[in-house]
Amino acid sequence: MGKETVKIGLIGLGTIGSGFAALLKRNNSYISENSGINLELSKVADKDRAKLEAQGFSEELIAGDIREVTENPDLDIVVELIGGLEPAKTFITEALKNGKHIVTANKDLIAMHGKELLNLASEKGLNIYYEASVGGGIPLIRPLKHSLAVDKIYRLVGIVNGTTNYIFTRMAQDNLGLSDALIEAQKLGFAEPDPTNDIEGFDAAYKLMIMSSLAFGSIVERDKLYVEGIGKVTYEDIDYAREIGYAIKLLAIGEKLPEGLALRVHPTLVPFEHPLASVQNELNAVYIEGDAVGEVMLYGRGAGAMPTATSVLADVTEAARSVIFRPNAGVIESSSSQLPLIPIEEMNTRFYLRFLADDRPGVFAALANAFGDEEVSLDMVIQKRRVGNTAEIVLVTHEVKEAAFRKALDKVMSIEAIKPEPSMIRLLS
Amino acid sequence: MGKETVKIGLIGLGTIGSGFAALLKRNNSYISENSGINLELSKVADKDRAKLEAQGFSEELIAGDIREVTENPDLDIVVELIGGLEPAKTFITEALKNGKHIVTANKDLIAMHGKELLNLASEKGLNIYYEASVGGGIPLIRPLKHSLAVDKIYRLVGIVNGTTNYIFTRMAQDNLGLSDALIEAQKLGFAEPDPTNDIEGFDAAYKLMIMSSLAFGSIVERDKLYVEGIGKVTYEDIDYAREIGYAIKLLAIGEKLPEGLALRVHPTLVPFEHPLASVQNELNAVYIEGDAVGEVMLYGRGAGAMPTATSVLADVTEAARSVIFRPNAGVIESSSSQLPLIPIEEMNTRFYLRFLADDRPGVFAALANAFGDEEVSLDMVIQKRRVGNTAEIVLVTHEVKEAAFRKALDKVMSIEAIKPEPSMIRLLS
Repeated sequence: MGKETVKIGLIGLGTIGSGFAALLKRNNSYISENSGINLELSKVADKDRAKLEAQGFSEELIAGDIREVTENPDLDIVVELIGGLEPAKTFITEALKNGKHIVTANKDLIAMHGKELLNLASEKGLNIYYEASVGGGIPLIRPLKHSLAVDKIYRLVGIVNGTTNYIFTRMAQDNLGLSDALIEAQKLGFAEPDPTNDIEGFDAAYKLMIMSSLAFGSIVERDKLYVEGIGKVTYEDIDYAREIGYAIKLLAIGEKLPEGLALRVHPTLVPFEHPLASVQNELNAVYIEGDAVGEVMLYGRGAGAMPTATSVLADVTEAARSVIFRPNAGVIESSSSQLPLIPIEEMNTRFYLRFLADDRPGVFAALANAFGDEEVSLDMVIQKRRVGNTAEIVLVTHEVKEAAFRKALDKVMSIEAIKPEPSMIRLLS
Repeated sequence: MGKETVKIGLIGLGTIGSGFAALLKRNNSYISENSGINLELSKVADKDRAKLEAQGFSEELIAGDIREVTENPDLDIVVELIGGLEPAKTFITEALKNGKHIVTANKDLIAMHGKELLNLASEKGLNIYYEASVGGGIPLIRPLKHSLAVDKIYRLVGIVNGTTNYIFTRMAQDNLGLSDALIEAQKLGFAEPDPTNDIEGFDAAYKLMIMSSLAFGSIVERDKLYVEGIGKVTYEDIDYAREIGYAIKLLAIGEKLPEGLALRVHPTLVPFEHPLASVQNELNAVYIEGDAVGEVMLYGRGAGAMPTATSVLADVTEAARSVIFRPNAGVIESSSSQLPLIPIEEMNTRFYLRFLADDRPGVFAALANAFGDEEVSLDMVIQKRRVGNTAEIVLVTHEVKEAAFRKALDKVMSIEAIKPEPSMIRLLS
């Protein structure tokens, strides 16, 4: 089957835009090989032309005017990564009118005007893809649209803002005050210089609006949403919450109740046994409950250039599949390669080992020699309970080739004082 | 836009098949309304005809012969839910030759003959969908095929067998032996009467083969895979592991290394801080690491009739979208409804409250009265550290309407002995 080429225009070469261009370049041949579709970045536009030149785009690729993207008859897909309501909305509208599929990471725009734009796309027989607008690299929009949409979702609870989750994590770990944790987050790039949108919960609110419209099939007005930021939470609260078995998280909560939708964003005590309680640092997760599917949680990096670019590129590939429609075009699954399989003996692992031994002098030395001979180094050796003359020994190795470990184990087991049938379990490294 | 009808044949009315038929019936009008595609169950086949009659299928719907499904010119999609290699493989092959898209939950078949069947489908311009073959209701295959496929995945680690995860969870909770935990799992329906496939790791191995072929684009021979069951793990091991900071899980691990693929299934010590360590009971999760996307975890119910049926129905909807191709056909997102939004005052929540009060007689009584008057009942009241004459009080309410709580809070704050600016945080119920 010949490769078919799909042409892409990109508007906005900021952090995510540059990440997307880099990822497309890096993985293009791999995607083309597996999907049968050749993705070609054909035009790039940014209000800062110097930025484009600095990033090494050729003269031919750089759009002198935005209409060279939005009205370009050669392009199939327009990727909008400038963010904000305007001029993004105008650019997307123009591109749709000119027959282009849209891929965007613009949460504000999709939250506020998604329905209007999706309707325009639908009229034109086109589509808008916005996986990157919520949850960065986490597959979230696509599962809501394609997998969970056949079920009746009645609840979704999300940690969808990495900045505030990082701040709460640091406050809990080191009893930091909110402002100290925020400064740290800013230093690490997990918070913007002006963190208002994150701290006040506005970012989470937009994301909740997008998820709700998919999960509950209902549009929400921004002003009617209850949104409370994290500003009032102190480390004393985090401490007390821990004492009674809870972590504090900024949650975006949506529920479909008989009376209507209950949507809100606010700091929340989450029981430690709930999977969301262990979502740490800048990570995001959304916990979804449906009638038939039960519970599902989707977890990962909610921000960052490369995770977000992955979602943009996945959307571009799906859009390209729409451009070149065949039922299995662009689905990356039936690779013909067969990589060599590494036998378990050649794999490197850490091992946990437990066995019984006579409790007498010289056993530990013999043990140490057996492992030392095969260059198996031990991370931990614990002598556990003793029954009569028998001791139980638990040890954990450093990473070692399995073959070497097994040789050492054979030697250990041949030591007279050591009882047969040890318990051996590998560690996740 | 008029509704278009897609006709479905179903082979196999066991637990999952019946669940699928029930879910389709329950959610059909809802799916049709939102996707613009009408799914019609047109033929059902099972070797036990009495079972079909008992489930209330009409004479017209029941296939007298399997060819009434596999060779039926009216059908667009065939759903195979009998499991096992044969006759499932023959049925699917016949259906593909007769131009039908396939949806299946058959992990053994996809693991062993997936490539061959997918190639046949591709030749015919058809596709095979198998979301339900791994991870029950968890969206896993689709994210691997469509979202994460644009990235280079280098590692996936999964808890993909609910039976063994349930057993380990119970062993850890109550120091049960493996056989007692197994009996309990069988009583609750989390383990088969013959649990060999689960206990020995074979079930997890098939699932690993399917995930690996998607994540690494490489076919794996079953015999070359290292598979170790859970039979040798005792509760002493679980105890010691906990002591040194680990949980024990049966993991399916796949890694792409420079030398090739390292694939194995074995019991594994997982550090408590790893998100997989807190996957409890019969739940499943797969932790995936990619170059660009970082880490992603997909979590949910890995088995059970209704979760699995959700995945089957999602696949059927996607297949139907291929039958009636328009870029936005069958994508459930642009609902026109606008459900009423419930104001925060009307929502029921539990509250955490912290404030300072003069440490003198009568304050607690006044507090209790203020809450009592508004029928806010308290779950917990703790008097915390005291500085001079001032005490810090932390309390947690039972679930209460927010408006009632706020009224009570106003009354509490008007008590002279209580200092202003309390800390109030809601609980996740």
